[in-house]
Amino acid sequence: MTSADDRLDQLEARLRRAEDQLAIMELVASYGPLVDSGDGRGAADLWTEDGVYDVDTGTYEGRNGIAEMVASRPHQRLVARGCAHATSPPRVYLDGDAAIAVTESQLIVQREGGGFDVVRATAHRWELVRTPDGWQVQRRTSRLLDGSDASRELLRPPLGHS
Amino acid sequence: MTSADDRLDQLEARLRRAEDQLAIMELVASYGPLVDSGDGRGAADLWTEDGVYDVDTGTYEGRNGIAEMVASRPHQRLVARGCAHATSPPRVYLDGDAAIAVTESQLIVQREGGGFDVVRATAHRWELVRTPDGWQVQRRTSRLLDGSDASRELLRPPLGHS
Amino acid sequence: MTSADDRLDQLEARLRRAEDQLAIMELVASYGPLVDSGDGRGAADLWTEDGVYDVDTGTYEGRNGIAEMVASRPHQRLVARGCAHATSPPRVYLDGDAAIAVTESQLIVQREGGGFDVVRATAHRWELVRTPDGWQVQRRTSRLLDGSDASRELLRPPLGHS
Repeated sequence: MTSADDRLDQLEARLRRAEDQLAIMELVASYGPLVDSGDGRGAADLWTEDGVYDVDTGTYEGRNGIAEMVASRPHQRLVARGCAHATSPPRVYLDGDAAIAVTESQLIVQREGGGFDVVRATAHRWELVRTPDGWQVQRRTSRLLDGSDASRELLRPPLGHS
Repeated sequence: MTSADDRLDQLEARLRRAEDQLAIMELVASYGPLVDSGDGRGAADLWTEDGVYDVDTGTYEGRNGIAEMVASRPHQRLVARGCAHATSPPRVYLDGDAAIAVTESQLIVQREGGGFDVVRATAHRWELVRTPDGWQVQRRTSRLLDGSDASRELLRPPLGHS
Repeated sequence: MTSADDRLDQLEARLRRAEDQLAIMELVASYGPLVDSGDGRGAADLWTEDGVYDVDTGTYEGRNGIAEMVASRPHQRLVARGCAHATSPPRVYLDGDAAIAVTESQLIVQREGGGFDVVRATAHRWELVRTPDGWQVQRRTSRLLDGSDASRELLRPPLGHS
């Protein structure tokens, strides 16, 4: 017979896992709307202070580096043309105060004359940490889905998970 | 030392937030399959009786207005050609019995001769309310992602949230 | 006045539903990354031992059948060119130890010379069962969104649900 205290302990631990998963889903869902509205500061705040965004087109370090990427001329040109960084829902691997999330995204850009092009399809691995301010991104590694081993590797379950 | 009653109170409040978030994810995930199967009545029932769908191509008022939009010739023509209103997962902002969800979607339409075109990419802000029948849409505001301020504004975190 | 035991019972039942929903979201989110990295064994393990994947282009039976589909020349050619099986978030209908999930997906393939084509948009109905190893797919039925009744039928709420 399980005591009420044990049941409460178990409920709290299970609910915390569910909340972690939901918080990470929200974090991932935040990225597209932030960068597509051109909000570099908002996007940067998804990362830790010293977080890294490592993508095939460049490596951006720290919140300032990430905010500058969004503020850069190439990114702002996409926003002005009309773009969506559309994401799939994440596959989340929780591990205490750390987590990994895997997503696939599309960069969709409005064409002159109407309609949209799928300019990129990208694999992402998000390395996340629990902080006093909630879950944040320590590193996001992103590679164009071009058949390369590097992109395919990002999509695999992390070591120790299946 | 927290009493069992306090722990139960806290668990119930936290679980309710998680359930709210999940219910809103489900609501958002319902829209595409309903309109892509041509089910105007099902789509309309996601809204409150007097709910509004305000999109750049028209404003549809009340459940009847929304059902008629789905039953309209332009929409049914899309369904007959084969289409997907594909959505990203929502960013959900809960606020008691109200909530806001932000999504980005694509309208994908089959091309003559095979393959699909991305006809639209759209920003959405869903204003949701808790009702006796669960969460419903009070207003959905949607704008083509064409670089306009109106579309970018929809993607920003609502006032009071970050 | 509800007793602590009753409150614990109710919390456990509610949390289990939330966990079920999250587990099914994770399962659905796993599929794209697995098949896009070419991991047929990983994809097959989402199904029950005798699970079926019934798609307009073929029917694959059992885990071996599904793993062979991923290992097949046409699929591996897509992976080598660079592809994403991008999914929308699922609409999940729970029913005790069984569940149905409805999704829409896109198959995006890199074009020679750069950029990506949306080669397919597909409706999916996932019939899921709870097993000792967690939720698994008993049958996934998938049809090209080409305006056919068969594809539209998959998107409708299952019988007994609205």
